[in-house]
Amino acid sequence: MKLSAADIKYVKTLQQKKFRKQYGVFLAEGEKVVNELVSSEFEIEGIYGLGGWVEQFGHQIRKGVPLFTVSESELTRISGLKTPNRVLAVVKTPNLQVVPDPTSEGLILALDTIQDPGNLGTIIRTADWFNIRQVVCSPDTAEVFSPKVIQATMGSFLRVKVFYTDLAAFLKKAWLKVPVYGAFLQGDDVFEVSSGKGCILVVGNESAGISAEVAKYVSKRLKIPGGAPPVEGFQADSLNASVAAGILMAILTRS
Amino acid sequence: MKLSAADIKYVKTLQQKKFRKQYGVFLAEGEKVVNELVSSEFEIEGIYGLGGWVEQFGHQIRKGVPLFTVSESELTRISGLKTPNRVLAVVKTPNLQVVPDPTSEGLILALDTIQDPGNLGTIIRTADWFNIRQVVCSPDTAEVFSPKVIQATMGSFLRVKVFYTDLAAFLKKAWLKVPVYGAFLQGDDVFEVSSGKGCILVVGNESAGISAEVAKYVSKRLKIPGGAPPVEGFQADSLNASVAAGILMAILTRS
Repeated sequence: MKLSAADIKYVKTLQQKKFRKQYGVFLAEGEKVVNELVSSEFEIEGIYGLGGWVEQFGHQIRKGVPLFTVSESELTRISGLKTPNRVLAVVKTPNLQVVPDPTSEGLILALDTIQDPGNLGTIIRTADWFNIRQVVCSPDTAEVFSPKVIQATMGSFLRVKVFYTDLAAFLKKAWLKVPVYGAFLQGDDVFEVSSGKGCILVVGNESAGISAEVAKYVSKRLKIPGGAPPVEGFQADSLNASVAAGILMAILTRS
Repeated sequence: MKLSAADIKYVKTLQQKKFRKQYGVFLAEGEKVVNELVSSEFEIEGIYGLGGWVEQFGHQIRKGVPLFTVSESELTRISGLKTPNRVLAVVKTPNLQVVPDPTSEGLILALDTIQDPGNLGTIIRTADWFNIRQVVCSPDTAEVFSPKVIQATMGSFLRVKVFYTDLAAFLKKAWLKVPVYGAFLQGDDVFEVSSGKGCILVVGNESAGISAEVAKYVSKRLKIPGGAPPVEGFQADSLNASVAAGILMAILTRS
């Protein structure tokens, strides 16, 4: 299929959250992620690929999925990237209304107001690496389907389910069933936790940390060793949120 | 002092590497980092602050350091940030020619072609947290004094020394003295390393990993557990470089 002016306009609007919500779709860019998408359970509304990509991979696309062959200049116009890749997909937003039920098996990650899209995407990518399949976010956490987050997940959004809900209410029910760990600047050394199987790990906002409302339901405060000694009166007073989350996930999921 | 048109032009040029090299200076923005700078050993060429900042903190500035009181619109013009902070400093680039000598005490971080400025800055910030004071970079690693790297370090560039040198040549000498660990997708579980005291940890490029030339001098390949099991034939095939570096630093520096 060829691209109309209306098609171009439509795809371009999806850079904005308002239109992603209105149409119930989001954008995924790049060869690696689109190639994984076509064999995933995600419903694809349309694929926009350069001639070379279509020739090479077009046969893998399910019947009924509209496939547009676009020129480089058309791809540049609809892409949100400075250097567009060879392909872009418009994907239906999955319906994730039912928040997971914590069990004694897996680790659930809870994010309290992670605001930077790059951090959220990187955290989802890291969760995927450690086989963490569920991430529960406070409503004011960055939107998982924004192009920057999708990009930073490097395809991991396909395998990690991300839910949005009132985090305090979720934890209020959960902490009767499983331990709720929270990342704080003061607390028990995370290396002393013997197992992270069947637990919830809460990571807080980039500057404010875990909110007081959510902290009420943290059953154990964990600290990543370090941050000292001070050099000439100063020291690193925090870690990047996605680095801190990664360190905690690595330690809690170790065998 | 008031700002001249030439001053504005000068500071603006420092966004470019060419001019930073030519003048031997770099930019540091933001209240937290400038307040730490003024009590550090770094030599400051000039400070550009809003009236409010100058009133509040001007008395802390060493004699002889030129202090410019600027308007908000002037600060916006000289700042590289979309939302400028209250103050900006032009700082003399320290001369770090002598590459560190590995000893049995500390951990030295070695970076083989980390290209993303955000990753480099975040890695320096994380190193600071874990009390790692020396980072040796291959010449094609991102420039530590670029504004994006300085920003991402959150002030940690003040406490972590960053050297650039032929990494293979550096490791060739070092591996006779201390263990050289490298981060790979295949290797020994990093949790099995008992102590990271007196060692070098090599972290490779975001997509290509550690180069063959450098890998020759890695005495033990380390792997971060995870990355499996595959879901529907796919899995997270890598971690973000700054997250991977953070996890390795946390585990190797644990007590």
